[in-house]
Amino acid sequence: MFYYDNPLVDSIINLALNEDIGSGDITTVSTIPVDKSATGKFIAKEEMVICGIDLADHIFKKFDSSVIFTPHFKDGNALQKGDVIAEVEGNARTLLVCERTVLNFMQHLSGIASKTAKAVKSVEGTKAKITDTRKTTPGVRALEKYAIRVGGGTNHRFNLASGVLIKDNHIAVSGGIKKAVENARKMIPHTLKIEVEVETIEQLMEALEAKADIIMLDNMPNDLMSECVKIASGRAIIEASGNMGEKDLREVAATGVDIISIGALTHSVKAADISLKFKIS
Amino acid sequence: MFYYDNPLVDSIINLALNEDIGSGDITTVSTIPVDKSATGKFIAKEEMVICGIDLADHIFKKFDSSVIFTPHFKDGNALQKGDVIAEVEGNARTLLVCERTVLNFMQHLSGIASKTAKAVKSVEGTKAKITDTRKTTPGVRALEKYAIRVGGGTNHRFNLASGVLIKDNHIAVSGGIKKAVENARKMIPHTLKIEVEVETIEQLMEALEAKADIIMLDNMPNDLMSECVKIASGRAIIEASGNMGEKDLREVAATGVDIISIGALTHSVKAADISLKFKIS
Amino acid sequence: MFYYDNPLVDSIINLALNEDIGSGDITTVSTIPVDKSATGKFIAKEEMVICGIDLADHIFKKFDSSVIFTPHFKDGNALQKGDVIAEVEGNARTLLVCERTVLNFMQHLSGIASKTAKAVKSVEGTKAKITDTRKTTPGVRALEKYAIRVGGGTNHRFNLASGVLIKDNHIAVSGGIKKAVENARKMIPHTLKIEVEVETIEQLMEALEAKADIIMLDNMPNDLMSECVKIASGRAIIEASGNMGEKDLREVAATGVDIISIGALTHSVKAADISLKFKIS
Amino acid sequence: MFYYDNPLVDSIINLALNEDIGSGDITTVSTIPVDKSATGKFIAKEEMVICGIDLADHIFKKFDSSVIFTPHFKDGNALQKGDVIAEVEGNARTLLVCERTVLNFMQHLSGIASKTAKAVKSVEGTKAKITDTRKTTPGVRALEKYAIRVGGGTNHRFNLASGVLIKDNHIAVSGGIKKAVENARKMIPHTLKIEVEVETIEQLMEALEAKADIIMLDNMPNDLMSECVKIASGRAIIEASGNMGEKDLREVAATGVDIISIGALTHSVKAADISLKFKIS
Amino acid sequence: MFYYDNPLVDSIINLALNEDIGSGDITTVSTIPVDKSATGKFIAKEEMVICGIDLADHIFKKFDSSVIFTPHFKDGNALQKGDVIAEVEGNARTLLVCERTVLNFMQHLSGIASKTAKAVKSVEGTKAKITDTRKTTPGVRALEKYAIRVGGGTNHRFNLASGVLIKDNHIAVSGGIKKAVENARKMIPHTLKIEVEVETIEQLMEALEAKADIIMLDNMPNDLMSECVKIASGRAIIEASGNMGEKDLREVAATGVDIISIGALTHSVKAADISLKFKIS
Amino acid sequence: MFYYDNPLVDSIINLALNEDIGSGDITTVSTIPVDKSATGKFIAKEEMVICGIDLADHIFKKFDSSVIFTPHFKDGNALQKGDVIAEVEGNARTLLVCERTVLNFMQHLSGIASKTAKAVKSVEGTKAKITDTRKTTPGVRALEKYAIRVGGGTNHRFNLASGVLIKDNHIAVSGGIKKAVENARKMIPHTLKIEVEVETIEQLMEALEAKADIIMLDNMPNDLMSECVKIASGRAIIEASGNMGEKDLREVAATGVDIISIGALTHSVKAADISLKFKIS
Repeated sequence: MFYYDNPLVDSIINLALNEDIGSGDITTVSTIPVDKSATGKFIAKEEMVICGIDLADHIFKKFDSSVIFTPHFKDGNALQKGDVIAEVEGNARTLLVCERTVLNFMQHLSGIASKTAKAVKSVEGTKAKITDTRKTTPGVRALEKYAIRVGGGTNHRFNLASGVLIKDNHIAVSGGIKKAVENARKMIPHTLKIEVEVETIEQLMEALEAKADIIMLDNMPNDLMSECVKIASGRAIIEASGNMGEKDLREVAATGVDIISIGALTHSVKAADISLKFKIS
Repeated sequence: MFYYDNPLVDSIINLALNEDIGSGDITTVSTIPVDKSATGKFIAKEEMVICGIDLADHIFKKFDSSVIFTPHFKDGNALQKGDVIAEVEGNARTLLVCERTVLNFMQHLSGIASKTAKAVKSVEGTKAKITDTRKTTPGVRALEKYAIRVGGGTNHRFNLASGVLIKDNHIAVSGGIKKAVENARKMIPHTLKIEVEVETIEQLMEALEAKADIIMLDNMPNDLMSECVKIASGRAIIEASGNMGEKDLREVAATGVDIISIGALTHSVKAADISLKFKIS
Repeated sequence: MFYYDNPLVDSIINLALNEDIGSGDITTVSTIPVDKSATGKFIAKEEMVICGIDLADHIFKKFDSSVIFTPHFKDGNALQKGDVIAEVEGNARTLLVCERTVLNFMQHLSGIASKTAKAVKSVEGTKAKITDTRKTTPGVRALEKYAIRVGGGTNHRFNLASGVLIKDNHIAVSGGIKKAVENARKMIPHTLKIEVEVETIEQLMEALEAKADIIMLDNMPNDLMSECVKIASGRAIIEASGNMGEKDLREVAATGVDIISIGALTHSVKAADISLKFKIS
Repeated sequence: MFYYDNPLVDSIINLALNEDIGSGDITTVSTIPVDKSATGKFIAKEEMVICGIDLADHIFKKFDSSVIFTPHFKDGNALQKGDVIAEVEGNARTLLVCERTVLNFMQHLSGIASKTAKAVKSVEGTKAKITDTRKTTPGVRALEKYAIRVGGGTNHRFNLASGVLIKDNHIAVSGGIKKAVENARKMIPHTLKIEVEVETIEQLMEALEAKADIIMLDNMPNDLMSECVKIASGRAIIEASGNMGEKDLREVAATGVDIISIGALTHSVKAADISLKFKIS
Repeated sequence: MFYYDNPLVDSIINLALNEDIGSGDITTVSTIPVDKSATGKFIAKEEMVICGIDLADHIFKKFDSSVIFTPHFKDGNALQKGDVIAEVEGNARTLLVCERTVLNFMQHLSGIASKTAKAVKSVEGTKAKITDTRKTTPGVRALEKYAIRVGGGTNHRFNLASGVLIKDNHIAVSGGIKKAVENARKMIPHTLKIEVEVETIEQLMEALEAKADIIMLDNMPNDLMSECVKIASGRAIIEASGNMGEKDLREVAATGVDIISIGALTHSVKAADISLKFKIS
Repeated sequence: MFYYDNPLVDSIINLALNEDIGSGDITTVSTIPVDKSATGKFIAKEEMVICGIDLADHIFKKFDSSVIFTPHFKDGNALQKGDVIAEVEGNARTLLVCERTVLNFMQHLSGIASKTAKAVKSVEGTKAKITDTRKTTPGVRALEKYAIRVGGGTNHRFNLASGVLIKDNHIAVSGGIKKAVENARKMIPHTLKIEVEVETIEQLMEALEAKADIIMLDNMPNDLMSECVKIASGRAIIEASGNMGEKDLREVAATGVDIISIGALTHSVKAADISLKFKIS
């Protein structure tokens, strides 16, 4: 059970290779003889928290099991510009065909890990955890959530089945927070917690009464959040949410919340700059 | 043949729905009765070039063909903050289950279209076209390339089969640009062009001699590019490439190149801010 | 979001139809003209809690959208021998081809729902909930867990991702229950609970100290379970487990446990007897 | 060509692993370091005819080719309580992740093989063969039919394409048994036999006249079946069918029928009790 | 249950559409506005037995359910040059995108049906049936076997599971024809026949003794086949096989064989000439 | 990147194996013990240009990685009757199960390569290239286009995305050739060429003016084609098309066209005669 054994990861790797290979790499096939070997070096072109090293190994081997991949770092390591991340050796056509797909994954994931690490660092010393959301790139969620952990963050629920999150509509239809929580509690596996999204102190108090396990403070100013934390006083996990990507995270953490969930960690990513240089023999 | 009839688009939609639904939306199923209807409004929370309206319609209907979707704008329209993009009506469970997946697609694609539109605007009046690359998000390429067009850009090759791009390694192994181009020309479909990546004026001249259809100037300073354009004088399409996301595009365009290809249009995207508000009856 | 919209349900329906149709129903195609219509009645041949009515409708329509399906009961209803469960009308070939697949699903699920209902009835008046396990039939889990709910039971975790369940091996490697719970808590989504399996009172107390959310009493005699419930006194959810299919459930419930999980509900099922009689016109 | 090379078997294994792994085994990943090894023993907890040993090996290796699997018995062996069925060795995470899926298959199949062996034993010394039906668990048919053979039974047709079975509706629409058999004979591959289901002696005689290869006696009392066997006197294979799971099979066999087909062998199965105990180093 | 509901047919249609559409029909999308309608006529450009009319309808509707398809003939009809086979109406892009895929299927299948019809005609008046083999085009077997029936032929076994065919190797390993037939009979479903391939009269007699249901005369001269038919005298179905595509079928039929199986019907096909002319409005 | 690493090739191999194996090779499994080994020889039964040797190796190994495959020739070699193409060694069941699928591929592809080689030979000494079309067998296109290259031909566009081909309808809707070419040029990747199909000299001149990269002369008599070539005088690639399979190719080439595209190379193929003889030990 490595993270890339997850069936969803397998699907996105297949899709990515298929969309890039199409009906075949005509440049490589027409210019590189089938018996050429090559070696390549992955090089960090800027500072970053690297993510995707094992995945790169896995993708190459999935395409061609004879590839030799030698990592010099591990996922989560902080790299300097110029660091040689890993070396790869194998059939020249294989390496050229997989190059772009491997880099696209690695640059995207390292971008997320690096951004997460910055957010985590900014709340260092507080009890607040930096958490992701379901605002992920379609198809890439499993890997993006892995990159969040690599960057030092933790994950919110993986999908609609791995936790209950009761929002305004669920509350309105159920006829109040209390009723909505009861409805959920009756039907869901006992291994899952129930989270309720609140916008006011009144709602917070209703949610506490209903014994919600987690309460999400939606788009509240910091001072209101502080008050909520005090009221809750440990009876529920408190999560700060709503455009957290644009806020001073240290100040949010200072309100005493347990969790700060940030959509921008996955929906607005700057790819980390990584190059792969080949030598063909 | 709508863009979402592309089989690759079908695959990523399925994958995105599957990864978000998992074994079922337990919150919705436990709190919203199966016979409830709902209406929803997509609202632009900032200025943007919208992309993904038809796709949203398509995803909802794919999940539940009884959904009614009413667009107020078309892909490519420039929206103001507060604009109601579209309205949707249907079974309440359906809408709640699809909500996040639809928004994840629409926000990502609108982010790309908006970024592209800015780049296109910055070279307005010049002959330079803004073009994407293969540095796309794994699995989402077909949609990202559509968003590029929606934003006013044009596409580079879709995959390794839709054009020849001869780089340093292909040249080295073939024994020079001329030989590499010949090798490719012998084997590829006559409907495809041959592009050669060059770093020096000597290479440019070799590529022109080899009758390359397109020549990519890789990471050249602007004055060198100007010189290359003069030397080529129309014998090949000239493409500027290499960290174009960080350059003054107007100045690059002023060199006279035909194409400016920008990886950052797809690998470093800020999601456009769109909300979906429901009313359940 | 009906239960049969779950992607896993879609996969098993496809697989079941494909394995039964093979390269085509040669009996039907050679003896029933393509333009014949038919009507059919599903009849309960014994008492049962019915499960799979909507699913039957869904499978027929998935194969041929022109089928008309008229249910006379709803999933969860207790039927008497002779009750007409539903009627179906459509192309004669369609109905004959789907018949066995639909019945195989419905009989299996109704068997589970009926067995669950009996278990639930036997603990009526106590606080104990009847729960399933991961000992399900390969490929059919999503439907079996639905049948459990239809029978009045609740679900344990859906899969290895929807809850933590720490057993002897995890404890041994981590170096104790406390350490294992800490390791899990650090990494998992905050929406998930942590369950620990214990075999002795000492382990129970370690688990309570580690703040496990749920504690599974594995294969304990009833009097020991009573003692555990007293010691826990509400600090954790207490689950009774281990060959519960062969025990007197009322006596187990009398120990005060919150949950009784029974593998036999899904791994040892007697199909409910349902027939489908056609009239072809 | 091992039985598990059948593409349908591959599909159900994938589905079973995917439904159980979901987005990843969070317990194992958070508590067991990636470099731990483990050994495990499969133990029979009751008497049984074992089935699924090679399949277990295959599933482990499919997930992780470095697993070492050492069987102590072969499919079809009769085991005593306490017998060590097989040993397995490999990466600890791999073994823990695959454990439940492997056991679910093995227990279900051994349950079928054991039940079949009992039925076969009960007709020992007669010429009657014990045969399965198409009343199988959705998705698992190929394996269940293998388990029937392992238990000493034989298979009825695998699917709607591997034999003709003419029932009341086909007869009614064709205008009689003779016409129905003719229609089938004209169109089907000459490698397939034609079976007709009859309920009366008149129908039996019609079927014999039509040169049906096999005649199924549907829900007849034993004395009527004896009479049918006499009338047929070797001109067709005679199959007894209809709730055979609840009859005295020895008495049915005494009627002289060639085949006794029993739906309950696959639709009403009690899982065999098998445990898998690990030691992690 | 239309022939195109066969899951294997669904797979090859999907594959064919995907391989032809690739990442999208750029010609159509760039030159035909999305709201244009079109009508088209399928025209026979030579005499043929048409096959694939319903399939054409099905492929268009699969791609776009709003297409209207009006057939003027039915599969199996003998067409004259110039006959209008069918008309189609719908979105212009849809029709242009599906055109080539639909024609490729229809021309290939009509080629097979026409070739089969000629073979069938050449043995008219004899009892010999014209039959196909497993020498089919990879992926297209289900459709090719349908085309054989449309042309008036019958099918041999669909795949390795739909009949037993014992050849030299099976005989050698089993230790003789008798033993091989016994081995098969013990294990296979009773709904399947056993065929033995023989090369000499000695083998024929062994096969008859072993009660083979069908005997294949492999590559025998006609006079030897006549002798075999006499010896068998109705005790088994006799099949002539071996380069039948190059023989005078009438003379083969005159030997009295029941079946003539011809690989060339499917492995060496001349496409029927069909055109599709559009009018766009 | 071997040609069989193309994802489309993977799909057709899977489909071909699945359609032939069905629910299992009952002849082999019942007559050949699981531990038997075998060796086999592929023999050319007539002169041919061989194609599919590596593919055969790949299919065997895909099914069972322990197979040893020893080629004696390479794809593209001209074989004499009696040549031993390759030898194969492995588990006897494996070889028997894969035999027909491997041969079906190899005979079909060698048929295409041989037919192509004849066409290429007939225009030897001229500048004309022999090219395929999109009139391929559904599902097998990637392999058929490979066989064309093996036979010495070149490929036309792989699919609707790998080149623009403007025909009568596109022209009519766009309002003339010039406008159609402009529309395409605006939207398509700059790596793709634009081809226009013309039927008259007027259209040819319009296409030249519009700067079409390639011009297809549709169904023109040879003298008209000669005139077109003169008029074009190198300004566009000139392609001869329309029932070329029935023309004297040498005379067509004499008109000076650059490309002769022939649908019959793939739509009307005679399988090459290849046998596979086994020895089982």
